[in-house]
Amino acid sequence: MAARTEQDVLDAIERRRRRPHVKLMDEHVTLAHGAGGKSTHVLVETLFMKELGNPLLEPMGDSASFRLYDEVGPGVALSTDSYVVKPLFFPGGDIGELAVNGTVNDLAMAGGRPLYLSAGFIIEEGFPTADLQRVAASMGRAARDAGVAVVAGDTKVVERGKADGLYVCTSGVATVDHDLKLGPAAIRTGDRVIVSGTLGDHGMAIMIARGELELEVDLESDSAPLHELVATLLEATDEVRCLRDPTRGGLATVMCELAMAAGVGITLDEAALPVRPEVNGACEILGIDPLYVANEGKLVAIVAAEAAERAVAALRSHPLGADAAVVGEVRAEPPGMVVLDTAFGGSRVVDMLAGDPLPRIC
Amino acid sequence: MAARTEQDVLDAIERRRRRPHVKLMDEHVTLAHGAGGKSTHVLVETLFMKELGNPLLEPMGDSASFRLYDEVGPGVALSTDSYVVKPLFFPGGDIGELAVNGTVNDLAMAGGRPLYLSAGFIIEEGFPTADLQRVAASMGRAARDAGVAVVAGDTKVVERGKADGLYVCTSGVATVDHDLKLGPAAIRTGDRVIVSGTLGDHGMAIMIARGELELEVDLESDSAPLHELVATLLEATDEVRCLRDPTRGGLATVMCELAMAAGVGITLDEAALPVRPEVNGACEILGIDPLYVANEGKLVAIVAAEAAERAVAALRSHPLGADAAVVGEVRAEPPGMVVLDTAFGGSRVVDMLAGDPLPRIC
Repeated sequence: MAARTEQDVLDAIERRRRRPHVKLMDEHVTLAHGAGGKSTHVLVETLFMKELGNPLLEPMGDSASFRLYDEVGPGVALSTDSYVVKPLFFPGGDIGELAVNGTVNDLAMAGGRPLYLSAGFIIEEGFPTADLQRVAASMGRAARDAGVAVVAGDTKVVERGKADGLYVCTSGVATVDHDLKLGPAAIRTGDRVIVSGTLGDHGMAIMIARGELELEVDLESDSAPLHELVATLLEATDEVRCLRDPTRGGLATVMCELAMAAGVGITLDEAALPVRPEVNGACEILGIDPLYVANEGKLVAIVAAEAAERAVAALRSHPLGADAAVVGEVRAEPPGMVVLDTAFGGSRVVDMLAGDPLPRIC
Repeated sequence: MAARTEQDVLDAIERRRRRPHVKLMDEHVTLAHGAGGKSTHVLVETLFMKELGNPLLEPMGDSASFRLYDEVGPGVALSTDSYVVKPLFFPGGDIGELAVNGTVNDLAMAGGRPLYLSAGFIIEEGFPTADLQRVAASMGRAARDAGVAVVAGDTKVVERGKADGLYVCTSGVATVDHDLKLGPAAIRTGDRVIVSGTLGDHGMAIMIARGELELEVDLESDSAPLHELVATLLEATDEVRCLRDPTRGGLATVMCELAMAAGVGITLDEAALPVRPEVNGACEILGIDPLYVANEGKLVAIVAAEAAERAVAALRSHPLGADAAVVGEVRAEPPGMVVLDTAFGGSRVVDMLAGDPLPRIC
């Protein structure tokens, strides 16, 4: 499939703007609208893209990349995420660390070097200042570890009962030095799908930390900054087509988005998917597919077939990519769809996440 | 007072980091911590600056300015604000317009040209999608009016009762083309204080929109993008020392911050302060001083005495600065304090906002 030209994108935006005002089917926002799956997609497409659409927002990637001074000078990436994770503190991290690493990772997926973050805090009246201090300290540590600085901030307080303790919103700026056109438009038939490690660790760690399950499992969030892992990958090969971090909605949802955006079919090999036995076990009990469970320290790379081996070797050379593996392939058929070849020799269609089995996971 | 060198700033940050862990006096966050006044200042100083402090965050301006590629290339400004205004829709604007203009204005105070915004939405389950559409449409209009594009976004949904309808967090990036060192460090004795128009319109419009007052006053928020007004000012004179937009906490709080940061005294002339009679009237009924009421379309400029007339003329040449006036002066004494010369010939000390008489004004 050929990449869309800038005029194609502008035309599409104009068509959307002129479209009669389509009411969302839902008259009220549901938790599913925030789950990152099908409902989020519909909300963003029919509402936000219609009102706010522009060529930089249109690719709907993890971040937007642009040049600040016309076409002169190197690229810049901007990204934002709000964090409403519950509980605020969990094995392997907390909302502060997550807010730093999550935004660092969105920037890393553009192949950027994250430099500066902003942080907005929405705090519920009555929130313990000791907890706020713990979150701030954790953000400070995560920022130093990732080599970024929080340079702008904002603090708002809402009345008791009007928020759930603490929400954090971080945005970040990165420089982008490479000339690769990373994104769905670069994906070609025959490309390989690579994940950098085990799937579902973050989501399951949160579920277990909530204490709603009667499970005693030793599982930590995989929250980690991925920009160095990406740099290692991009040093090894320039045949990377697209990078995503499979957070809300998990690997399945990211794959569906890419298959639709690129107009290709994606086949995943269930036997090749790296999933910890503890995560598999917890997922079975909950009746959730680990393919839909959030990750906060993993990436998905679509890479040209001939570079796949080199890419996996590069990822494995970094501690955060030790379990990297090829898990799938891009095919011409069925366009816009993801198919899973199951471990039992069958195959089934993988759809976007519907509903929200794991609310407030990030 | 001489400007602090970079080493001074680094030393101060290191001293703060080494300081024993001071517990905040308050064990719980109060509404006052979000009011932008004294409590916010203490929270930011003892908690956020200690954990996250760095030379770019240290000036605690409306935005952070830096160069993305070492010392090469033009400057860039980054800013963020979360919006929790209540009600979401009010005369003269809504949360969407506010979230665009507020962040545009934070960037404008660096003398920047705002270009790209990100937007994060935290939505309560059950929020009417029609209202969300109205907010998105309003953001789109405000963005087009201000010449900026929303290029990155995020949507989170929290359970019913866990938020108050909708919170919006915007961040923004601007290019900074001038070489002025805008900030408190540039302030000198003898400088003049200029405001671009009437004070307190936004805060009072919100209070009246809440319907808690039995007042029938025709008052609109002054929400407006100020970057063109700033550009007009900076074209007229390069003797601007510092720019701020007096939002939460109003003019009084900004003046106190600048007096403390610059180690100077600031005298305000009550008779010169432009305040609409409706705002004055509503403030009297509420027992609130308009000096502390939020503005969303006004700026305060500290300008060299000899350039003050030129600066006021430039501001007045723009529709958003039609009521610009010199309202005060920078003096050597009393250092760190703001004094109001009252209309009755007396004078009184103006302190930072204490408590929060007007919660969730932005």
